[in-house]
Amino acid sequence: MSSLEDFPLQLVTSYLDTSTIIALSVFFALLCACIIIGHLLEENRWANESIAALLLGLCAGAVVLLVKKGKSSQLLKFSEDLFFLYLLPPIIFNAGFQVKKKRFFKNFTTILLFGIFGTVISFCIISLGVFWLFRKIGVKHLNIKDHLAIGAILSATDSVCTLQVLSQDETPFLYSIVFGEGVVNDATSIVLFNSVQTLDFRNIDGLIALKLIGTFLYLFFSSTALGIVVGLLSAFIIKTLYFGRHSTDREVALMILMAYFSYMIAQFLNLSGILTVFFCGIVMSHYTWHNVTESSRITTKHAFATMSFIAETFIFLYVGMDALDIDKWRESKASAGTSAAVSSTLFALVLVGRAAFVFPIATILNCVQKRASSKIQFKEQFIIWWAGLMRGAVTIALSYNQFANSVRKSPESALMITSTIIVVLFSTVFCGSVTKPLIEAVMLRHRKPMASDVADNLSMEELRALLLENGDPSDSNNDQQAPRASNLRLLISHPTTTVHYFWRKFDDRFMRPVFGGRGFVPFVPGSPTGAADESSST
Amino acid sequence: MSSLEDFPLQLVTSYLDTSTIIALSVFFALLCACIIIGHLLEENRWANESIAALLLGLCAGAVVLLVKKGKSSQLLKFSEDLFFLYLLPPIIFNAGFQVKKKRFFKNFTTILLFGIFGTVISFCIISLGVFWLFRKIGVKHLNIKDHLAIGAILSATDSVCTLQVLSQDETPFLYSIVFGEGVVNDATSIVLFNSVQTLDFRNIDGLIALKLIGTFLYLFFSSTALGIVVGLLSAFIIKTLYFGRHSTDREVALMILMAYFSYMIAQFLNLSGILTVFFCGIVMSHYTWHNVTESSRITTKHAFATMSFIAETFIFLYVGMDALDIDKWRESKASAGTSAAVSSTLFALVLVGRAAFVFPIATILNCVQKRASSKIQFKEQFIIWWAGLMRGAVTIALSYNQFANSVRKSPESALMITSTIIVVLFSTVFCGSVTKPLIEAVMLRHRKPMASDVADNLSMEELRALLLENGDPSDSNNDQQAPRASNLRLLISHPTTTVHYFWRKFDDRFMRPVFGGRGFVPFVPGSPTGAADESSST
Repeated sequence: MSSLEDFPLQLVTSYLDTSTIIALSVFFALLCACIIIGHLLEENRWANESIAALLLGLCAGAVVLLVKKGKSSQLLKFSEDLFFLYLLPPIIFNAGFQVKKKRFFKNFTTILLFGIFGTVISFCIISLGVFWLFRKIGVKHLNIKDHLAIGAILSATDSVCTLQVLSQDETPFLYSIVFGEGVVNDATSIVLFNSVQTLDFRNIDGLIALKLIGTFLYLFFSSTALGIVVGLLSAFIIKTLYFGRHSTDREVALMILMAYFSYMIAQFLNLSGILTVFFCGIVMSHYTWHNVTESSRITTKHAFATMSFIAETFIFLYVGMDALDIDKWRESKASAGTSAAVSSTLFALVLVGRAAFVFPIATILNCVQKRASSKIQFKEQFIIWWAGLMRGAVTIALSYNQFANSVRKSPESALMITSTIIVVLFSTVFCGSVTKPLIEAVMLRHRKPMASDVADNLSMEELRALLLENGDPSDSNNDQQAPRASNLRLLISHPTTTVHYFWRKFDDRFMRPVFGGRGFVPFVPGSPTGAADESSST
Repeated sequence: MSSLEDFPLQLVTSYLDTSTIIALSVFFALLCACIIIGHLLEENRWANESIAALLLGLCAGAVVLLVKKGKSSQLLKFSEDLFFLYLLPPIIFNAGFQVKKKRFFKNFTTILLFGIFGTVISFCIISLGVFWLFRKIGVKHLNIKDHLAIGAILSATDSVCTLQVLSQDETPFLYSIVFGEGVVNDATSIVLFNSVQTLDFRNIDGLIALKLIGTFLYLFFSSTALGIVVGLLSAFIIKTLYFGRHSTDREVALMILMAYFSYMIAQFLNLSGILTVFFCGIVMSHYTWHNVTESSRITTKHAFATMSFIAETFIFLYVGMDALDIDKWRESKASAGTSAAVSSTLFALVLVGRAAFVFPIATILNCVQKRASSKIQFKEQFIIWWAGLMRGAVTIALSYNQFANSVRKSPESALMITSTIIVVLFSTVFCGSVTKPLIEAVMLRHRKPMASDVADNLSMEELRALLLENGDPSDSNNDQQAPRASNLRLLISHPTTTVHYFWRKFDDRFMRPVFGGRGFVPFVPGSPTGAADESSST
């Protein structure tokens, strides 16, 4: 027994860190509460799960603050790793997996214009506005990189809350525009943010703009290509290996892991993981999903939606709890007046920055578009403007990245973080709660089918008729020249529909036989009718 | 531009830690590889997914070791948090969710005897053996706490690998015994381990044994009760709130979160999270699962299995990669001979320790059991002994906890870790690959229905007949005394079947009307026929 003398009695009853366990317990309890409250609020048009989670997070933060006697409201520190590695990928992947592909690609030009040029315009206006207005308020110690970073940070719209506010079934056109823009916007603003960090502002010249465009195009295309490649790979593996003897658990596991893998590889290659995982989701729902068993289809459809749903709720809870980050508030040393001035300046710039691209771009698109039915009406433009005002976790994460981790800790850096938090809270709660009633008031009062929603099916029929008149190119290969000319003419007059038509032909002839997909795997009766299924039909 | 002068050009293209991204990318790629290899190996009776993951992990570890030029084989450090908070709960929850409840509870006495007394016997023998043999090998600097800890560490069988080796359909009796024992054993060995850490060995007296028993009983019953309460709560919430308007995503999310919550609360209260989450799984499959929509049922069944499957594969990959923890090997300063001697001593003690309780307890049970058909045959005893020899991640986690985090870092502590790793690798690869062919050789050569597998259905019929003869207590309430006496007689002669019969009556009359369950929610045609469904019948 003598060897024991030198060891004091320790009361070790658990080998885990107690604070982690407490934090996780509280978060899981709050998540359950959010789900239940969200369910009860379902019929309520002013509130939704995001707002409930945000407010519940705020309350929980206040309680923690009281319990810890004003020391800190944080149970888990806001970590960029947690957000970018574990919470964002399932949300974006699920968005790609459940998006109505046909509608998304039909509006692809509009989405790209809004997502790329819109974000750049918003970035310029916010940066310039901050540069000009902050000196008047009295915030003088930020440098040019900080100003540009604020522009990028506040240009990142929140696609998560948008998904909850707009309905894919009721307003499909608006949903696809605003949500699609949100995904592209995420990529654009992160590219802008990284460019701001990377660029050497001591040697500014005309090449910088070109370099930025080059970087963006490289990022956009390589990220998209990577997502498509990984998605196709998953389809190919499952089709080749699993033929004849399916195993639901393995199929589901492989789909989840490969989707995640695409995101990781993109991050590793410094690409935009968001774009990659979004396109991986699209490809998986178009090919892989049709190669798996019936139960795998139901499982993946709901499991991905559930993962995304939990991640979304968690983010809002997290942001809510994080808002009372008392250290940052103390550090900022700003009066309530300055705080309010900075926050309202930022939010005003967000309003202006978004207005400055939504209305002009929509007007330009309307001028180019000849068919009256495809024009974006003014009230639709208004909703697009309004629904994209929300700022969310990407904004917070980028803001922490720029101002919390910086080498110099200044009161103004802390002020930027607290102001960003105020903008996020205000825009989510206010815009989030007002959007649904606003849409109902603006759109549904004059209840008629939105022109831009029904136009396409008719034109598809028209196109088919036109192609048959000219001789379908797949039927009469001996007479190549004439149809090609008419195809070109059709491509100009009905661009998206024609592209879709030829894509379908290419898909049926080359892609589906290799990668599987609807109609190229043995038909299983009783297939679930849902977003992913419906979306792959014509 | 002057304000920029003081900031050097930084090439920040990503705000995430590169090493984390690399580690995650590699792990996801390896997981995908494991799944594909596991699928290809499905028909092979010598290998399985665990062994493939372990070997793949070893190879990957070797590659990392080469790339890092012998510095470290670890991409992610083995973290108890990761293991106990994120990997173990889904595995144990899924085990509870998919277990065939009727068979599990039928063998409950046997399982408890093996799981509690067996583990204690094994713990004593290994501790004494280590105490006695290590001095002979030359390992002299361990104290009594270390010896007892080794006993607890090596008494923890690996229920994960067992699940892969034994088949619930082919050998249901053995599966329920070995797996059920594994779950109870997990709890027992962790309780023993914690008790060893907590107890004050300077004041050893007769009370210690009593205290240990008291602690164990408290842990066992309160953990079980907590799991049941959380499970029932989830059933009640879903039944009450969601009636009429179901939402699959919310239901699935709520089930996952509440299961996880039960584990966290148990850890927070210093109970056995493993037992809690296991019973939570059982209750959820019995009540909650029947309250949700058809698609939720399919989703939960497969999503839980998939999560468990990924966690299992990850653990083996992780253990494989961790085995080449070069620092520990260097620290131990042991020759290959000493290492081999210590490892083989430990493994021999594991063999002896398990034999010392499986055969005696089975013999005692056989003596008590009068019906020949219910006796455990010798070859079944042999398989129970053999299938429980595997040691896994719990062993590694406890070993790191005892010897890596200790205040004093001695070569012998490091030697204990490396020896434990060798025992785990050897037992998993060797026992894991031999068990399946062994079972086939021992059991299936004489292909006849195992007596203990078919006995129960008959006796259930017999019981029903007996009860009808005596007047079913639920039908004739006016004649209470006579049936009660006969019930008592039945309870003695057919204990488990009678308990099951009255449990069903109680369940139907009191539990199911409140918490839902089969037959107490609107019947949905085409319900999936599977483990969770089948198990709740009869």
